[in-house]
Amino acid sequence: MPFWKKDRVHEEIYNNVAEGLRSVYKTKLMPLEETYKFHEFHSPPLDDSDFEAKPMVLLVGQYSVGKTSFIRYVLNEDFPGIRIGPEPTTDSFIAVMHGQNNGTVPGNALVVDPSKPFRCLTKFGNAFLNRFVCSNVKNDVLESITFIDTPGILSGEKQRVDRGYEFSQVLEWFADRCDRILLLFDAHKLDISDELKRCIEVLKRNDDKIRIVLNKADMIDHQELMRVYGALMWSLGKVLNTPEVCRVYVGSFWSKPLHFDSNRRLFELETKDLLDDLESLPKTATLRKLNDLIKRARLAKVHALIISELKENMPSVFGKDSKRKELISKLSIVYEKIQREQNIPLGDFPKLDRMQEILKNMDFTKFKPLDRKQLERVDRMLSEDVPKLMNMIPQEEKTYLEIHDRPIS
Amino acid sequence: MPFWKKDRVHEEIYNNVAEGLRSVYKTKLMPLEETYKFHEFHSPPLDDSDFEAKPMVLLVGQYSVGKTSFIRYVLNEDFPGIRIGPEPTTDSFIAVMHGQNNGTVPGNALVVDPSKPFRCLTKFGNAFLNRFVCSNVKNDVLESITFIDTPGILSGEKQRVDRGYEFSQVLEWFADRCDRILLLFDAHKLDISDELKRCIEVLKRNDDKIRIVLNKADMIDHQELMRVYGALMWSLGKVLNTPEVCRVYVGSFWSKPLHFDSNRRLFELETKDLLDDLESLPKTATLRKLNDLIKRARLAKVHALIISELKENMPSVFGKDSKRKELISKLSIVYEKIQREQNIPLGDFPKLDRMQEILKNMDFTKFKPLDRKQLERVDRMLSEDVPKLMNMIPQEEKTYLEIHDRPIS
Ligand SMILES: Nc1ncnc2c1ncn2[C@@H]1O[C@H](COP(=O)(O)OP(=O)(O)OP(=O)(O)O)[C@@H](O)[C@H]1O
Ligand SMILES: Nc1ncnc2c1ncn2[C@@H]1O[C@H](COP(=O)(O)OP(=O)(O)OP(=O)(O)O)[C@@H](O)[C@H]1O
Ligand SMILES: [Mg+2]
Ligand SMILES: [Mg+2]
Repeated sequence: MPFWKKDRVHEEIYNNVAEGLRSVYKTKLMPLEETYKFHEFHSPPLDDSDFEAKPMVLLVGQYSVGKTSFIRYVLNEDFPGIRIGPEPTTDSFIAVMHGQNNGTVPGNALVVDPSKPFRCLTKFGNAFLNRFVCSNVKNDVLESITFIDTPGILSGEKQRVDRGYEFSQVLEWFADRCDRILLLFDAHKLDISDELKRCIEVLKRNDDKIRIVLNKADMIDHQELMRVYGALMWSLGKVLNTPEVCRVYVGSFWSKPLHFDSNRRLFELETKDLLDDLESLPKTATLRKLNDLIKRARLAKVHALIISELKENMPSVFGKDSKRKELISKLSIVYEKIQREQNIPLGDFPKLDRMQEILKNMDFTKFKPLDRKQLERVDRMLSEDVPKLMNMIPQEEKTYLEIHDRPIS
Repeated sequence: MPFWKKDRVHEEIYNNVAEGLRSVYKTKLMPLEETYKFHEFHSPPLDDSDFEAKPMVLLVGQYSVGKTSFIRYVLNEDFPGIRIGPEPTTDSFIAVMHGQNNGTVPGNALVVDPSKPFRCLTKFGNAFLNRFVCSNVKNDVLESITFIDTPGILSGEKQRVDRGYEFSQVLEWFADRCDRILLLFDAHKLDISDELKRCIEVLKRNDDKIRIVLNKADMIDHQELMRVYGALMWSLGKVLNTPEVCRVYVGSFWSKPLHFDSNRRLFELETKDLLDDLESLPKTATLRKLNDLIKRARLAKVHALIISELKENMPSVFGKDSKRKELISKLSIVYEKIQREQNIPLGDFPKLDRMQEILKNMDFTKFKPLDRKQLERVDRMLSEDVPKLMNMIPQEEKTYLEIHDRPIS
C-alpha cells in the first residue's frame, strides 16, 4: 500500500488562501469582468467550486494499460463502479471523489451540482453525460485529490464509431482543468496507435502537466524493458516534441507481487517518486490558483482597455455599422495604441483573430467607456491583496514548486 | 576479455566470393563503365582493395566518451599510437588494421598504397592527411574487421577552428564506406552538443549502419541511468527521425570492474549482443558487396542507355553546341523515353540535376553509340554469374542478414 501523509497544516492554509482568492475575485476582479463582458469573450465567471475544487489527476492511456488498477492501488480499495479486466472495461469518465457515503452519481445530475466543477460539461451533450459518472468514496487520499478515470483509447474505427461524443474534446476539457495528467503505457504491449497519438496531440497544450507511467514493467525481463522503454522515449520525443524530456515512472502500479524482480529496487524508488509527485499537488495547488488568478486579472485589464478604446472610437449617431467593421479589421492598430500608451507586453493581449471573430457578433453600442475606478481596484488587488495571499503560502511550498514541479531532464 | 570466434569456414567462402566478384566486375561490368565514362559521372573504378577490404567499424562520439578505450577493449591490447585520457586525446583518424608487424603508417603514405581502400582520401588535402594514420597490429580480431578511431567531437568554436579540414566531410566519407557506425554516448556526461548533432545529421544517410552505445553506464545509479537513457532516446528520436528505433547497447565497454553493479547482468547481455553484432559483420560483408555490385551494374546500364541516346541525338556536322545545350535542358525527356522503351523504374536513374551539371563539362562528340554486346554481357552477369556467386554464400549467412541486420524496434 502506498503511504499517503495527510498534512493538516497545509490543508489549513489551503482553505484560507482559497477563501482569500475567492473573496478578492468576487469583490475586485469580477466587477471589471462584468462591465466589459469578459465572460462572453474569454471564460465564464469563476464560482465557489472553482476555488474549492481539489487538485485533479487525469489518467489517460490505451485500454487495459491499468488506469483503473492504478487508482485502486493508490486508494488501496475499490471504488463504486470500478471495473478491471483484460478486455476494454471502463466505458465512462469516472470522477473518483471524496464523499461521506460511498455511491455513484450519474453525469446528468453531476453537471447541475453547483458544488462540483463540472457544470461546463453540459456542452458535450447527452451521449457524453450518459458516460460520465462520479464515484464517491470515503477515502483519505481523496480528501486532498480527485482522480479522473477515463475509458481506454481503442484503435482506429472502434474509437470513432462506438462513442457518440467527441472523446478527444472531452479529454482536452479535463486536461485544461486538471493539475496532473498521467499518461500510461503498457511495457508488455507497447503500441502507440494513431488514436493514442491524436489524444497525445490534444494534451500537448498542457504538456507541463504530463507525466508518463510505464506500467507492467515487471512483466518483461530487464533487457527487454530497456528496449521497450527506449522505444517509448524515441517515439514520445517526436510526438510531444518538447526540448525537455518528460518524466517517466517505470514500475508496476498495482498491489500484486512482481513477476521479474531484478528491477525491484528501481520500481520501489520510482513508485515513491510518483506518489511524492501526486502528494505534492495539494501543496502546490494554491500557488497554481493564485497564478491563474494573476493571469486572469492581467487579461481582464487589457480586455477592458480594448473594449473601452473601441467604444471611444464609435460615432454617436451616423455610420455605426461601417465604423464597427473598420475597427474590427484594424484591431491590430488598436492593440498597438494600447500597447504603446499603457506599456503592456504584446503577449498579454488576447489573440487577434479570435477577438475579431467574437467582436463580429457584438453590439458595440453596448460597450462601456473606461472605468478608472474599477481598473485601479484590480491594480490594487494585484499589488496588495495578491502579495498578502502569497505570504500566507509557506515558503516551503513555493520552493517546492520551483524545485519539483517540472520535468526532470 | 570479449570472446571472438575466428571462423575459418566463413573466411574461405568470403575469399572465394570476393574473388568471383572482382573477376566478373573486371571482365563484364568495367568494360561497359569505361565505354560510357561511368567513372567520370558516378564513381571511380573498383580495384582489388575494394573487394578485399575487411568490414570497417567507425567509432564516433564526443571527446572522452571512450572510443579509443572501446577499441582497446575489443582487441584486448594496446595498438600503436593509442592515447587514452580524460582531456581530448585522439587527434587523428586512426585506421586500426591487421598487420604482421606492429607499427604506424602516416596518412600520406597510406593514400598511395594500392592495397588499402583509402586512396580517395587524397582529396581532403594535407591538413587531413597529417591527421590520418594507420595502426598495424598483429591481433586476431583485426583479421576479420578494421576499426576507424576518430578524434572526439568538440563543442562549438574549438571544433571548427582547430581542425584545418572538414571534419564532417571526412566523417561522411568513412560512413559511406564502413559497415557499422558505433555512435558512443557517455551516461555520466550526456550532452548532445550542436557539433555532435551536426555530425549525426551527416551520418543519417547511413542510418541503417548506426548502433548506439551508451557507455560508462555503471558510473551512475540505476534510477539515474534510466533518466539518462530516456533523455538520450528522447533526443535521438528527434535527431535521427527514423520510425524504427535505433538499437542501443547499454554498458561499460572497458576492462575495469563495474562501479555500480546492480545492472551487471544487463550489461553482460548487452556486451554480448554488441560483440555478436560486430562478429556478424564479416559474415554478411560478402552479401553486402554482392548487393553493391548489383546496384552498380544497374546504374551502369541506365547510364549507358542515357549516354548513347544523347550521342544518337547529336547532329553529325552543324549546330552541335546548341543541340548539346538543348539536350541537357531537356534531359528529363530523354529519361522518359528510355524509361518507356526499356521499362526501367525511374528510381534506377541517376539524379537529373547532378547529371545535367556534369554533362555541361562533357564533350558529347566523344560519346559512344549503343554497344549491345557490352550491355548483354552485363545482363548475363546479373542473370548468371550473380546467382552463382549468391549460391556460394551459405544459406545461414543470408538468413542471418535478414534476421539480425536491422535495428530492433
Ligand atoms: N501493474 C500491473 N501489472 C500487470 N497487470 C496489470 C497491472 N495493472 C493492471 N493489470 C491488469 O491489466 C488488465 C487491465 O487493467 P485495468 O482494467 O485496470 O486497465 P484500464 O487501463 O483501466 O483498462 P480500460 O481502459 O479498459 O478501462 C487487468 O486484467 C489487470 O488485472
Ligand atoms: N567504460 C568506461 N567507464 C568509465 N570510464 C571510462 C570508460 N572508458 C573509458 N573511460 C575513461 O574515459 C576517458 C576517455 O577515454 P578515451 O580516451 O578512450 O575516450 P575517447 O572517446 O577516445 O576520447 P577522445 O575523443 O578524446 O579520443 C579516459 O580517462 C578513460 O579512462
Ligand atoms: Mg479502466
Ligand atoms: Mg580517443
